[in-house]
This record gives sequence, structure tokens and C-alpha cells, in this order.
Amino acid sequence: MKKPPDLLLDTLRAAVGAAHVLTHEDPSADLAAWEQDWRKRTRGRALAVVRPASTAEVAAVVKACAAAGTAIVPQGGNTGLVVGSTPDASGTQVLLSLTRLNAVRGIDAANLTMTVEAGCILQTLQEVAEKAGFLFPLSLAAEGSCTIGGNLGTNAGGTQVVRYGNARELCLGLEVVTPQGEVWSGLTGLRKDNTGYDLRDLFIGSEGTLGLITAATLKLYPLPAAVTTALASLDWLDSAVEFLSLAQARLGASLTGFEVMNRFSLDLVRRHFPQLAQPLPGAGWTVLLEQSDNESEAQATQRFESLLEAALERGLITDAAVAASLEQARTLWHLREAIPLAQSLEGLNIKHDISVPISRIPAFVRATDEALERAVPGVRLVDFGHLGDGNLHYNVQAPAGVDAQRFLAEHEERVNGIVYDAVMAHGGSISAEHGIGALKREELARRKSPVALKLMRAIKQALDPHGRMNPGRVL
Amino acid sequence: MKKPPDLLLDTLRAAVGAAHVLTHEDPSADLAAWEQDWRKRTRGRALAVVRPASTAEVAAVVKACAAAGTAIVPQGGNTGLVVGSTPDASGTQVLLSLTRLNAVRGIDAANLTMTVEAGCILQTLQEVAEKAGFLFPLSLAAEGSCTIGGNLGTNAGGTQVVRYGNARELCLGLEVVTPQGEVWSGLTGLRKDNTGYDLRDLFIGSEGTLGLITAATLKLYPLPAAVTTALASLDWLDSAVEFLSLAQARLGASLTGFEVMNRFSLDLVRRHFPQLAQPLPGAGWTVLLEQSDNESEAQATQRFESLLEAALERGLITDAAVAASLEQARTLWHLREAIPLAQSLEGLNIKHDISVPISRIPAFVRATDEALERAVPGVRLVDFGHLGDGNLHYNVQAPAGVDAQRFLAEHEERVNGIVYDAVMAHGGSISAEHGIGALKREELARRKSPVALKLMRAIKQALDPHGRMNPGRVL
Repeated sequence: MKKPPDLLLDTLRAAVGAAHVLTHEDPSADLAAWEQDWRKRTRGRALAVVRPASTAEVAAVVKACAAAGTAIVPQGGNTGLVVGSTPDASGTQVLLSLTRLNAVRGIDAANLTMTVEAGCILQTLQEVAEKAGFLFPLSLAAEGSCTIGGNLGTNAGGTQVVRYGNARELCLGLEVVTPQGEVWSGLTGLRKDNTGYDLRDLFIGSEGTLGLITAATLKLYPLPAAVTTALASLDWLDSAVEFLSLAQARLGASLTGFEVMNRFSLDLVRRHFPQLAQPLPGAGWTVLLEQSDNESEAQATQRFESLLEAALERGLITDAAVAASLEQARTLWHLREAIPLAQSLEGLNIKHDISVPISRIPAFVRATDEALERAVPGVRLVDFGHLGDGNLHYNVQAPAGVDAQRFLAEHEERVNGIVYDAVMAHGGSISAEHGIGALKREELARRKSPVALKLMRAIKQALDPHGRMNPGRVL
Repeated sequence: MKKPPDLLLDTLRAAVGAAHVLTHEDPSADLAAWEQDWRKRTRGRALAVVRPASTAEVAAVVKACAAAGTAIVPQGGNTGLVVGSTPDASGTQVLLSLTRLNAVRGIDAANLTMTVEAGCILQTLQEVAEKAGFLFPLSLAAEGSCTIGGNLGTNAGGTQVVRYGNARELCLGLEVVTPQGEVWSGLTGLRKDNTGYDLRDLFIGSEGTLGLITAATLKLYPLPAAVTTALASLDWLDSAVEFLSLAQARLGASLTGFEVMNRFSLDLVRRHFPQLAQPLPGAGWTVLLEQSDNESEAQATQRFESLLEAALERGLITDAAVAASLEQARTLWHLREAIPLAQSLEGLNIKHDISVPISRIPAFVRATDEALERAVPGVRLVDFGHLGDGNLHYNVQAPAGVDAQRFLAEHEERVNGIVYDAVMAHGGSISAEHGIGALKREELARRKSPVALKLMRAIKQALDPHGRMNPGRVL
């Protein structure tokens, strides 16, 4: 007689085809790509990796797992940073990969929407939109391999949030398979729909713990006529906040990017990527700003230069370099994007993805820099991120010459405590855009208001009473 | 010995002060303003009208009602259109008015946010923001008396949604009193916060059935440097959709209003408000468009005129009139705003607040106009609304000479059936911006997907298991 797991595997094979149910029983199958998290912090072991190709197949898999009492861990591109999409070590969880649901179901030009399946790669969607004459503005480092389902499941952010919002703001409708294996067809292309509770936003950002997003209707935007990019150097972070206010007043919604980098971030880039030219070296702080214009290149450049001149006159910035070509603009963005890579090359470090109100960013950084320096003399701080959204990747590197592994072992908990205490004291969030996953689950339980946690638990219990959807994540 | 309701009333008086607990026992108290809905469709009878002045007092009232097993109906400005904020006829419900919670708790200029209490009048908030140098862009007909708590509770829309979104998109954080009388302090000014389920958006638009919004942190925008307004006449609704696409491509986020009106709408305005000049009379369709510019009046005018010329050249519009002054711009908006008033003066009518994908608006209107004309020959259709959001107020007036009261009695149900069938066939919503209340509750149960209804009921049951928050609304 077959054991229960074998019966489940048979049902899953019948549902999605034997070729799409991968198990450790098959000596030729290597499940590492699904079982290992992106940052290589943990490696789990799945009962099986199941790869349905349609919403109906996803529903069949969920129903089979519900009947068998088996937990499901959904996964898109597996690029998450908080251990949210890999199985635990028990060997009992089904890893449900959504990458075969990768159809673009349609583009509605006059409605400025596209309807796509969860497994579509983000970059593919950017390209599909552009080919149709539109912009899909979600953009982040992992765009070449992350999926839109994962982006929505984690409410991803990225570099254009200051203008277009997070993944949440870019989504009008969802198709979701519930923990019971039912399909909610909420794929509306409507900009206004006040017929009851906002289920869409409840699923977005719930990290697969309430149901599985299988498709989405997304907002498109007209392609801008011109995009201009510049670097500006500043002495103080306070000036960066004032510069942001000025840019918002002058450019309005044309301001599509506003990134900040401290000196040490760019020093690390210089050390590890000396081939990348740095037009404004040695500044205490550097801002990368981007403007998108719907009219013309000339108009965009004129407006941009006028902003930079005003900022120079007011003493907010000390110097500026405007990209004269698309090529130069790319180089400026490379500087920003090279920071996480340079950090990795420098050695292991303690990462944070925090936000505070923009107005409180300078005070937060001052207080936290000082507290960390007191706690770990010589500690090196890689402060950079999306200032336009109040979101910093406030990362902590070992003092020069100190072994990184030992630094982490000795100081990670204490450093996190200092940073998160400061975040809370400044009205901020311990996870701005990466989510909670398994990595920040305990921190969330400690830091989130008890009333909010109670509400969240009540919702989880109501929708997934047996706790089968991505257990051990978020709550 | 006192009866249970009297004991509750004593507790409520102790919580908020005797002067703020109004009952029918007091012969001098007139509760009509709280018991009668805005459209005068029903008049309820409250056990008491309770007017707390702080979040703590709201919590005390909710706790007292929970202990007594008494239902609560929350109310702001009582301007809702779907009977969502008045008590039923039983005389057992507590009407909880939030208008005394009307403090602006603070403005954070560098963070572009303001934190305000639920009872603040929308127009007051627009003025407070402008005085501080900012725009709070939520704008709708009832703004002089509706409250921000009601706007959020119903996810209000209005005339600037094409650029700034609904109330939902303008809110970053909430303070909420739960059905158990606990306070969730979620008043964050953060643009990015991925720490768990999106409770904010769950409460927004839930019409007071899951908890009571007592305060909110709202987004502000820089004041535009110039606002330009124009009317354009068109032969076909299809042209209006093409014109919208052109305006979006040319103006991007500077397009802050795009309203459409059919000929009969403006004919009614002419009949009842002959003093309002109509610059482009006799057009099949008229578009009112508005542009907000962050740079200068000159730049705005040039860009606007260039758009209108292009639309004329392409044959999308047949004529246009640009407002030459703020005064003229106001007059153009008055034409649009006079439509609902002209309709009321013409007589009772059957109102709808529907949305379909923008691309399907022309087909929807053609099909529905025809179906209604077949069903009720001579029926007069007042088609107008927020084309930029796919939201029409598709209202149905009795044939000329037919008694309106009799028309409603004979045809309302059938007309609603025809309109809502067409809405569903075109992928739309039966309530775009007004919500469900008691008025559309049965329609919702018929029209919404059973899976969505099941999810909504599970959430309601989880957060308000005894069904005490605004019972009989939404679900």
C-alpha cells in the first residue's frame, strides 16, 4: 500500500504531468535552485517541486495539498531577500513554482492596462509594454529573474516608487487561488471599484500566506518623450531632503527617481569597480536624480538644468553632472546599482531595508551612525537608498581589517537591535520593500503593534485556518 | 431598576459627557440630521446619537456598546449616496458621529503628509493644505460638508482621480478603533512599509463594517504653478476615448481632470440654469479637461493649446474653448457640476455610479442606451462622469411628459437590471465610487463573485464576529 505522501505525489502528477513534479527520489533531479534562498542563508528540503502551467492546475495542486494536509510554499523567481519562498527542512512541504504561468493574456491600450500571469519575468513585462508603446514602471535590481507574482506577493518597490508607487499601486486586479483551491477571478481593469472589501490589496504583500496570485491586471503609462539623469554632490543629508522638496515642487510627477548614497558607499564602488567613472568624487553625500518628461528632450533638459542651478544657488548642492546621453545616464545608474555588489565583494555585512518619514531621515542617520560607532568602534556604514520614498538600505560593514564572519557572529543581533530601535523611535518600518519572510518574522512579532498583529492573525485564521499557505512566514 | 438601554446610555454619558448623547427622550433634541440619509430615501431611528471628541472616547463608546451587545452606525458628514451612515428603524442602534474629532494633528512639509482626525471637513483640509503651501487633491461635490473619515470609509473618488487616485491612494496610515474597542495606531507617514498584511486598505472602503477610522495620515502634493481648463466638443464617445489617450500621452501626470457629458446632460443644465454660458452648445459629447503644471502659466497654456490643435487636426474634437482666466475655468466646472442639480430639478431619476474599462465605455453606452430605449421608449439618458477613470454616472430620466414618480415605481428595478447586466457584460463595477451601503447590498450579493463574497464574509466574521459594526451594510 502506498504511503500518504506517495498518494499525494500521484495526484499532483495527474494534475500537472509527471515531468513537472520533481522529487529527491529522482537521482537526476537537482532541486537546489528551488530549495536554496537567494542570499544563501538557508537550504530547505521539499517533498516535491510542482510546476503547474495554468490557474486550473494551480487550483488542482492546492486542492490536492489541502486534502492531504500538506503545506505549500509558493515561489516565483526565488530572488527574495528575506527567506520567504523556500521550503523548510522537514521534507514535507510542496514547493509550488509559478514560473510556467508566464503568458501575457492581453494588453488594453485605451485602458492603459495589461493582464499577465504570475510567472512572467519582470523585465519581460517591461519589454512587452515598451514594444506596445507603453511604460511598465516597476524596476528593481532582480528584474531579470524575479516574477511579477513575487513582486505582487511581496509588494516590491525599486527605483521609480517616488513617481509610480510600489507594486501595489501598479495593480488594478488579481486572480487568486484561495487556500481551499477556489479561484477568485478579480482581474478587473477598473480604476474605480467600490464593491466591498479591498481583497486585492490584502493579497498583495501577504507573501503567499493567504492565497496564491496567479495573474494580475497592471497599469501602463505612456512612454516618456525624454528621460534625463544627473548626479549631485552634497555636504549634508539634510540638504538632500531640502533638495528633494525643491525637486518635487519644480518637477512634480516628472521626478521619477531620487536616490542617495553616502561617501563610503561610493568609496566601496571605486575600490571594487575602478573602471566605473565617478564624476563627482569625494562628496559627503551624492544624489542620483531622474526626470521623465512627456514633451521633449529640450524641454526636459532646460527644466532639469534650471532645477540644478536653483539648488546650487541655494547652497543645497555643491556640484552637479547631467548625463549628456543615454549611455552616460546608464553609467550614473551603474554607480548606484554597483553598491550592493561592491558590498558583497568587500565581505559579509548586516543588511537593513528600513524606512522612516523623509523628514526624519537625517536625524535617524545621525543618531544611528553615532549609536553604532559607540557600540562597534570603526564600524563602516553603507547608507544608500531611495530617499524619495524615505527608504534606506542602511547596511553595516565590519571595521576595516576585522574578519566579516566574526563581526557578524559577534555583532549582528546587537547591530539589528540598535538599528531597529532607532527605526521605531523615528516612526519607521523595519521592512520597507523586502517583506518579512522567515528572516524578520520574530522581529515583526516584537516590533509591530499588538493590535495590528491580532488583526493580522485573525485574518490569517479566517482565510487559511489550517495554516497551510507558506507557513512560518510573516506571522 | 434601570433597563439595559438606560444602563448603556449612562455609560455613554459618562464616556463623552451628557451633552453629547442625544436621545428621543429629550423633547428639544431633533435627530433628523443624523437619522435621515442624504438623498432622503429612508429615515431611521437611533437609540442615541453619541458624539465623542477623541479617539479614547470613541474607544470607550465602542467598548460600552460591545458590552451591551448594541450595534453601532458610524457617521461623518452624512453625505453618502447609498444609505450607509444612518440607523435602521429599530431604535436600538447607536449613531456614532465622528464630527467632533476634527483636529489637524500636524503637517510634515518635508514628508509631504498631514495627519488629521476623521471628522475634519474635506474642504477644510484642502484649505489647511493650501495655506501650508500644498495641494490635497481629493475633490468632490460634497466637499463642503463630507468628512475625511467618511471619504476614507467609502474610498471616495471625485474629479482628480485620473491623476491622484481615489481616497485610498491618498492615505498612508490610519488610526482605527476595532469592533472590540481597541485602538490600532497605524498613523504612519511612510511611503514604503512591507511589515505584514495591508490593514490600511482593508479598512479603507469597508464602510465602517470592520472598525472605525478615527484619524489618517494623508499625502500632500506641491501646489501646481498653473492650472488650465478647457471644453472640447466631439461627435462621438469613441473620439473621447481616443482624445483621452492623446491627452495622457502628451500631458502625462499633468492631466488632472477628464470629464465627459452627453448632449442631454448639458441641455438639462441650459433649461434649469440658463444663466450659465455654454461656449460649445449642441455638441453630441463635451469633454472638460484640466491640466496642472509645475512650471509656469505660459508653459502650461502652450502645451494645452498644442494638445487641442493636435486633437482638432486628427478630427477627434470639433471645437475647443480654453478658459482665459480662473473665473472662466470655474464657469466651465460649474457646467459640469450643475448636471446633478439640473437633473434633480427636472425630476426624480434613476442614478447609477458605474465603471467599465475605459476602452469599453463607448460600446457599453451604445448597448445600454439601445437596450433602455427598447425597454422604455423615449427614456432620457443623462450620461456624464469621470471618463479618465472609466466611471460614468449613467442616470436615467423619465420620458418627457411622464410623471417621474410613476416612472420610478414602474421601471426602476427593470432599468437597474438592464444597466447592471450591461455593466457585468462589459467587465465593470456596479459601484465605482459611492460604495454599497444598504442601497446596493442585495445587488452586490447577486453580482459579486461567490468566491469574493465568501472571502469578504470570512473577514467580516473574523474582525466583527457579532456583526455590531454598521450592520446591514455591504454584506
